[in-house]
Amino acid sequence: MQTTCDLNPRRGRTTTLSAARGGSSVPSARIGILGASGYTGAELMRILLQHPHANIKYLTADRSAGLAFSEVFPQFSYVKGLPRLSKFEDMSPEKWGQEVDIIFCCLPHATTQLVIASLPPSVKVVDLSADFRLADIEVYKQWYGGEHKAPELQKEAVYAITEFSRDQVKACRLVANPGCYPTAAQLPLVPLLRSGLISQEDIIIDAKSGTTGAGRSLKQNILYCEVTDGISAYGIASHRHAPEIEQGLREAAGGKEVVINFTPHLMPMSRGILESIYVKTAPGKTAADLKAHLQGVYAQEPFVHVLEGSKVPETRLVRGSNHCFINVFADRVPGRAIIVSAIDNLVKGASGQAVQNFNVMFGYPETTGLLSPPMFP
Amino acid sequence: MQTTCDLNPRRGRTTTLSAARGGSSVPSARIGILGASGYTGAELMRILLQHPHANIKYLTADRSAGLAFSEVFPQFSYVKGLPRLSKFEDMSPEKWGQEVDIIFCCLPHATTQLVIASLPPSVKVVDLSADFRLADIEVYKQWYGGEHKAPELQKEAVYAITEFSRDQVKACRLVANPGCYPTAAQLPLVPLLRSGLISQEDIIIDAKSGTTGAGRSLKQNILYCEVTDGISAYGIASHRHAPEIEQGLREAAGGKEVVINFTPHLMPMSRGILESIYVKTAPGKTAADLKAHLQGVYAQEPFVHVLEGSKVPETRLVRGSNHCFINVFADRVPGRAIIVSAIDNLVKGASGQAVQNFNVMFGYPETTGLLSPPMFP
Amino acid sequence: MQTTCDLNPRRGRTTTLSAARGGSSVPSARIGILGASGYTGAELMRILLQHPHANIKYLTADRSAGLAFSEVFPQFSYVKGLPRLSKFEDMSPEKWGQEVDIIFCCLPHATTQLVIASLPPSVKVVDLSADFRLADIEVYKQWYGGEHKAPELQKEAVYAITEFSRDQVKACRLVANPGCYPTAAQLPLVPLLRSGLISQEDIIIDAKSGTTGAGRSLKQNILYCEVTDGISAYGIASHRHAPEIEQGLREAAGGKEVVINFTPHLMPMSRGILESIYVKTAPGKTAADLKAHLQGVYAQEPFVHVLEGSKVPETRLVRGSNHCFINVFADRVPGRAIIVSAIDNLVKGASGQAVQNFNVMFGYPETTGLLSPPMFP
Amino acid sequence: MQTTCDLNPRRGRTTTLSAARGGSSVPSARIGILGASGYTGAELMRILLQHPHANIKYLTADRSAGLAFSEVFPQFSYVKGLPRLSKFEDMSPEKWGQEVDIIFCCLPHATTQLVIASLPPSVKVVDLSADFRLADIEVYKQWYGGEHKAPELQKEAVYAITEFSRDQVKACRLVANPGCYPTAAQLPLVPLLRSGLISQEDIIIDAKSGTTGAGRSLKQNILYCEVTDGISAYGIASHRHAPEIEQGLREAAGGKEVVINFTPHLMPMSRGILESIYVKTAPGKTAADLKAHLQGVYAQEPFVHVLEGSKVPETRLVRGSNHCFINVFADRVPGRAIIVSAIDNLVKGASGQAVQNFNVMFGYPETTGLLSPPMFP
Repeated sequence: MQTTCDLNPRRGRTTTLSAARGGSSVPSARIGILGASGYTGAELMRILLQHPHANIKYLTADRSAGLAFSEVFPQFSYVKGLPRLSKFEDMSPEKWGQEVDIIFCCLPHATTQLVIASLPPSVKVVDLSADFRLADIEVYKQWYGGEHKAPELQKEAVYAITEFSRDQVKACRLVANPGCYPTAAQLPLVPLLRSGLISQEDIIIDAKSGTTGAGRSLKQNILYCEVTDGISAYGIASHRHAPEIEQGLREAAGGKEVVINFTPHLMPMSRGILESIYVKTAPGKTAADLKAHLQGVYAQEPFVHVLEGSKVPETRLVRGSNHCFINVFADRVPGRAIIVSAIDNLVKGASGQAVQNFNVMFGYPETTGLLSPPMFP
Repeated sequence: MQTTCDLNPRRGRTTTLSAARGGSSVPSARIGILGASGYTGAELMRILLQHPHANIKYLTADRSAGLAFSEVFPQFSYVKGLPRLSKFEDMSPEKWGQEVDIIFCCLPHATTQLVIASLPPSVKVVDLSADFRLADIEVYKQWYGGEHKAPELQKEAVYAITEFSRDQVKACRLVANPGCYPTAAQLPLVPLLRSGLISQEDIIIDAKSGTTGAGRSLKQNILYCEVTDGISAYGIASHRHAPEIEQGLREAAGGKEVVINFTPHLMPMSRGILESIYVKTAPGKTAADLKAHLQGVYAQEPFVHVLEGSKVPETRLVRGSNHCFINVFADRVPGRAIIVSAIDNLVKGASGQAVQNFNVMFGYPETTGLLSPPMFP
Repeated sequence: MQTTCDLNPRRGRTTTLSAARGGSSVPSARIGILGASGYTGAELMRILLQHPHANIKYLTADRSAGLAFSEVFPQFSYVKGLPRLSKFEDMSPEKWGQEVDIIFCCLPHATTQLVIASLPPSVKVVDLSADFRLADIEVYKQWYGGEHKAPELQKEAVYAITEFSRDQVKACRLVANPGCYPTAAQLPLVPLLRSGLISQEDIIIDAKSGTTGAGRSLKQNILYCEVTDGISAYGIASHRHAPEIEQGLREAAGGKEVVINFTPHLMPMSRGILESIYVKTAPGKTAADLKAHLQGVYAQEPFVHVLEGSKVPETRLVRGSNHCFINVFADRVPGRAIIVSAIDNLVKGASGQAVQNFNVMFGYPETTGLLSPPMFP
Repeated sequence: MQTTCDLNPRRGRTTTLSAARGGSSVPSARIGILGASGYTGAELMRILLQHPHANIKYLTADRSAGLAFSEVFPQFSYVKGLPRLSKFEDMSPEKWGQEVDIIFCCLPHATTQLVIASLPPSVKVVDLSADFRLADIEVYKQWYGGEHKAPELQKEAVYAITEFSRDQVKACRLVANPGCYPTAAQLPLVPLLRSGLISQEDIIIDAKSGTTGAGRSLKQNILYCEVTDGISAYGIASHRHAPEIEQGLREAAGGKEVVINFTPHLMPMSRGILESIYVKTAPGKTAADLKAHLQGVYAQEPFVHVLEGSKVPETRLVRGSNHCFINVFADRVPGRAIIVSAIDNLVKGASGQAVQNFNVMFGYPETTGLLSPPMFP
């Protein structure tokens, strides 16, 4: 069969997953996931379980090593035929070449560079960490506090917001999957800077993130009682996603220096990022001009949508989906506009975009496995 | 094409919904949804948008009549080709016969009987209200405070927890879709009463429901600030789902009288029902016997799963899915056992089971459109 | 005794409220509350129940008229001796003069002007609505869509953020209690504009509010399932608190025109406002200069606190208290600073400040009834 | 002055805390708190900051040792004059005798017995851990998995739900402060068992707890995203509060054996416990008889309230207060009744009851520092 997993193993009565999905003669991809037991790993599983060509062969998660799939992912306990989770060490590089076609790397930053460098060149990689996002290894060192351990790989890595990089992704071996905040910021800002409709100065991004964005590791500040019924700013003027955003905006601004104000907030929400972005319009340009341009740019995109009228994007409207909702509003302050951008940080901001890039790399229809509608409420 | 809706209207780049889903030569069903703008209606839309054979022709919602689909369902605003919402009156019965094959009725109870009675016999119906759930119209009158307005229809209505009623559903025209609490209660209790493994006396069901269970109408008790960060019991010894549960249990107990204690609680959760059920085991029987029996009964079921070991069912493990997770635990009190049952009230407790019944009525694979994995977190 | 209410009516065993609070020979104030059954009314009750000199004589709430106090406020059902709620009409103006010394007016805006105009001059008033906040009745008309109905009263009304207006409050009869957003914004911005440390241009206020800020009336957008697990911007460039903030900032800026960007967000939080404020520093001035100035200004204030070091204000740190926490941070963008301000919208943003103003009007120690520490978690 | 802390240090303008509270000639108690930085410790601080006779001298918290008070308790950062947090070892027993009159012990269970045994006899102790709650050290060993390390102290410890044990508390040196679940269960059940109005058999307690009940230590199951928007049962038939409840009920039942069904649930709520208790009434007795008896028993109590009519207790109605709300309802099952009991687990379930016991031990009015009304919303 095409897939190792079967959402519905009861042959007699009903069809198999692959049949239900029209599992065709398209060859499936053999997949390994490193660091599968965190939130981005679990979300990758949720999406790939709906992907007709995903053949999940290896799962590593050092903390959960040895546990049955259903113990680590009780929500998927009814799915049969998925592998146990093993320690990374237990899967030596020799294995990779023969047994998997693609690795999704969900390891913490600063741990990924050497791992990927050790893989045989035949394996393709989508890295969800920050390790290959910054083209300039000096900037990486400055913000992440350590030397880059795979500068050669960095040169071939493709930083891929899919909508901006399809051709490079098709051809590349290593995708640096963008950060959640940078995805929500660049989708509206890059086209506006490229077109010269806004100034690259005084860009202020006030971002609100769901708590999955802080990961699943044990920290007091993400305990339920520390997060619920409140909101707090963090990483003020020091968040590591700032240089990633600036890298993309600088390129879009034709190389002009861009220094942004980026202020993230942690709030009681499992998933979602909302960014309220305050920009200066180019002389003579209005919010309507900005919106019209974005509508044109994204008219044919399956996952980026400029909302009609004055409808305001909300995180709950994209929850669980790979969509980005955007709208642009006139400001009362002359010469300014307000852009609101919403994504699900775990999907378009992480695992969904990773699968979108995977689809492009392997020639599958770009939306494969990503068509579940948002879940509201 | 097979469906009127298309999750991805960009022909050039990617495939259509139906193709992505292997839209085959299976004929699609032309669908009307009455009362589409509430939570069960929205959930029905979310599920049918993933159904390869769903052809949504008519949507009625008196409060939202005339509004564009994307105004009522902003979360689906990127989906093209769906109808505006109209008032029920604007769709005269003559229309139905020719233009739809099935109606999903999401109207409030006491409003449904006359509507359905007015439909031409060629139209099949899945009624999500309580209007046809109680076989005895005297019991209906006693609990719902009014005469039953379609006693003839009541006789042909099939009360359908799909797992218990497939054959009748295949053959019937009118399905009374079960309530959320009764579904979560009967899935474990019916097989145990049928087999005589538990007593029909002293069954205590302590239920906790997400707030979508209270609907979308404007009531102070479901305002955000009245629900968050707390929990409250309601309808103590007077909830209308009690007679519905008792009807199913009495039948399972071979007609023996069953009077249950049913105490629902409203809590800060959008979706989900958790029921902690306290039962007396038959003489000489243990919790392990109960569990083994349920495992056998549901071994081949796609949507009902008895968890392994001491894993406790949680609402968040089934969120957004049509699954019911069940487990059985020994009590410290001799001769007692504790059953925990979890479903998503909007899916297996309402719209998902409605589509499951629809699939059986129309001969589609029973899991069609219902294979999305749970979304956690 | 001095108070009509008694938190602990059991004489034998324990002391009475007034004794517990050292109910002294200070005369109590006879109080009437109009619109007592909303969230600001309930919060006013909570605070006044801790006030040794509060003698609550009349409560009006048209929707709850005739109900026992304990039915409207079950959380206070153990408090004895409080009045039933009556309709406003049932308390004719003649009564006021003799029977109450102060009225707290918690009615919706546009309903308050005539009510207050009808009161005998001997009664003092703290109005929590927006009806007397805007000095210029033309601006009122523009933003609230109707003629001001009591222009003469407007002239004598004192807009009172207590810290800025003590002397006028002492002497006045009618206090216009500030809005929640304007309080959190003006506490840091007014001193900075007065001192010329920041520019009055390009002030951007990104505000996040708890849902009590939207009131207790029945609207779909504040239902639990519409608010939880998400965030949305609203009233973009059109919120009525913008002109109120601008009025205060213009005065602080020596009359210079001020047009702000004010973007409020509704989020899943019962109480609290967090404002992230983006400002331009005056030439040569730094974030440290701004912070030092605010520390000096508020050094002696009981309720406004500039946090030490880089501690970030959070709504949950002031929950239930009358405190405002403020801090100032350097921005990476040259010439800019970031100010974070947090209050409880129901306390310092409404009922707490109302009691603070009441204390000043009646010569009670300003903190009377307002010393409960924040409740976290 | 009587207290080391001052909620409002601005002498010039306003009064001090003690004056505001009528700080009288009553001598204050010198207090030490062990394990101050957890949730019960923080709550103890919040309450004692409102207590006119509390003189907080020592705070220990090994994890937070050396940090300034305002760093550990940013919500209290405006309070002056409170001690830094030190390691327990740094406060040798010699110190205690001279410098404190009472110790509140908020350490984890199994760590407390030796600590308390090492204190000089002159120091009184309220222990909030489970270490001295079980009179029978064999039962302690069975449930807590270790030998009791201070059996002699156990003999003199007074297990004190204040309402049941005032006289012993007055006279004792060591109070074992009850657990949260046991307090909410015993307040209604003990009087009913004593009076013989209910059977001691088949008592089923379905309890729902806020997440502070799980403490502040770092565990994955209490991360925000693991708790929000769901509910789960835990410790089924194995929770350590079961034997504590049974100890109290057995005594109330005149020594008859009592084995209860106790099923706790963890839910998205910071504070609060709701218990739905299913009992069998004595022959000929009704729910009304049970309610009437409880009303009589608690008529004079300041903190225990039987609600009128069919008003259902809710956790949010007692939030932040020391109150317990109770009501009794008839069951449809003949011979059964349903009792609903609600407390704030951090107040009446922990720190509030600890202060209530402290007041009794030191001869202060029992409600001192505990009169803040509930905070809703």
